[in-house]
Amino acid sequence: MRYYVFELAGTAIFAITGVLAVARRGLDVLGAVMLGLVTALGGGTLRDVIIRGPVFWLEDFNYVWAGIVGALAAFWIGWFFRSTYRGLLYLDAAGAAIFTVIAANKVLAYGLSAPTAVVLGVITGIGGGLIRDVLAGRPTLLMSRDIYATPILFGCSVFVLCRSYVPEFAYASTLGIAAIFIFRAIAIHRHLQMPVWLTLRE
Amino acid sequence: MRYYVFELAGTAIFAITGVLAVARRGLDVLGAVMLGLVTALGGGTLRDVIIRGPVFWLEDFNYVWAGIVGALAAFWIGWFFRSTYRGLLYLDAAGAAIFTVIAANKVLAYGLSAPTAVVLGVITGIGGGLIRDVLAGRPTLLMSRDIYATPILFGCSVFVLCRSYVPEFAYASTLGIAAIFIFRAIAIHRHLQMPVWLTLRE
Amino acid sequence: MRYYVFELAGTAIFAITGVLAVARRGLDVLGAVMLGLVTALGGGTLRDVIIRGPVFWLEDFNYVWAGIVGALAAFWIGWFFRSTYRGLLYLDAAGAAIFTVIAANKVLAYGLSAPTAVVLGVITGIGGGLIRDVLAGRPTLLMSRDIYATPILFGCSVFVLCRSYVPEFAYASTLGIAAIFIFRAIAIHRHLQMPVWLTLRE
Repeated sequence: MRYYVFELAGTAIFAITGVLAVARRGLDVLGAVMLGLVTALGGGTLRDVIIRGPVFWLEDFNYVWAGIVGALAAFWIGWFFRSTYRGLLYLDAAGAAIFTVIAANKVLAYGLSAPTAVVLGVITGIGGGLIRDVLAGRPTLLMSRDIYATPILFGCSVFVLCRSYVPEFAYASTLGIAAIFIFRAIAIHRHLQMPVWLTLRE
Repeated sequence: MRYYVFELAGTAIFAITGVLAVARRGLDVLGAVMLGLVTALGGGTLRDVIIRGPVFWLEDFNYVWAGIVGALAAFWIGWFFRSTYRGLLYLDAAGAAIFTVIAANKVLAYGLSAPTAVVLGVITGIGGGLIRDVLAGRPTLLMSRDIYATPILFGCSVFVLCRSYVPEFAYASTLGIAAIFIFRAIAIHRHLQMPVWLTLRE
Repeated sequence: MRYYVFELAGTAIFAITGVLAVARRGLDVLGAVMLGLVTALGGGTLRDVIIRGPVFWLEDFNYVWAGIVGALAAFWIGWFFRSTYRGLLYLDAAGAAIFTVIAANKVLAYGLSAPTAVVLGVITGIGGGLIRDVLAGRPTLLMSRDIYATPILFGCSVFVLCRSYVPEFAYASTLGIAAIFIFRAIAIHRHLQMPVWLTLRE
């Protein structure tokens, strides 16, 4: 699978951004590794448990190694990544895009319906970050107006729709990944937030 | 199944009360839908994962639609529900009653023991609300003295006991649902809290 | 299994320390029992769900009874345990040691790899406490510098390494349990924390 290298790289990137997001005075190296692993592997684990497939990192421990390497890198040379933090956000967007589309494809391959694939794609894309925030005592992205889950939901729907009408994986996946990444990259670049009319004002 | 309509209605009601409980300035529509879905589907998902059955909303996506409709309704016309919030609490009690009893019945049908059915019935009844509170950064009901889990535990035990001695489902389920609903309705009406002797005072 | 009695005792002790850790004014008896059960059974439940084995307390409800007894004891005679709280910490260390090693052994028996067994052993040892802290709204141990997860990771690795080279269970398990317990006991006795060079200082 040519996606395999991207998946491992995405896992490491998720672990790096996961650790940087919660890094603060007093966090120790084991806590950092565990929070990085949860960020990188949590979403896919939720997906596999819900569809009752084998949990992906039990079958191939390289995902765990990739997460450990990423978390240790973020812990030891965090100053380096922090200087390029906005760059990392774009990489994180690419990782989320690849993870989500691969997840939705896996769910479709299990014979589940298109709407189910969208829901589980989104769970895979944001689940790890949610669990990390809960364990680290931070507000989760669900309570924030940042445009993070919206591109994932949008691009995942694009992918699943394309897959329903055009059976070729390469075409649909490129479109879905591009949709997530470009939408999210614009949101990062312009500091977009949810428009006021889609937000509670009371 | 005549319970099917009630189940869908209960799912929508859980999503409505779930969103209203966390609604505050700055919550956006996607966050609201995700928190509503977690409230409505979380408990049953936990139950299905623990008993290793197929997760119910993978088999029938109508539960997800019902949750989305309820969450959107709470988001867009929340002012309407807020004016009838106490009315919604009673509906929520009815939803929890139906969910719990159907869950306990499903667990018994899997051949698991009566005490297990009680534990999993309670997990189904309160699990979604617990996950929502954690994701929304609110104190969970476990740390509150409100009488919410007690009626669920009581009525679920009534149902499972009846089922053990009287095999007829309609009889036992009516009794269990009534026990949960009436107990909880009294608690809502009278603002009951756990008695002091069942509460830590230090 | 001669370990069975230790396992039940460990479950009760986890429930006791779990309730004592979150006990505060206003906690009611049902909340205490649920938080105690989550502490005692949560880690093993996570492990069983991830490896897709039957959840252990569905097969043998005595684990749940042991957890309920421990939680009620901590609730009703908490003053007694609080006077011996440091003693309980040592018992908790013994419980965590036994739980972790039995978990890793179970994972190896499922035919999974040695590194996977270490990861799942650690999840079993700390998972219940993590879920309890999240539900109780407390900072989790991942954000603390206490030496809690480190002995578990170390001793679990010792056990799995021994098992790979010496197939005799009694030898490897005694070594693994002793490694966890002694390391953790020293940390409790000396109030050890993670060294500064393994901790973020910014």
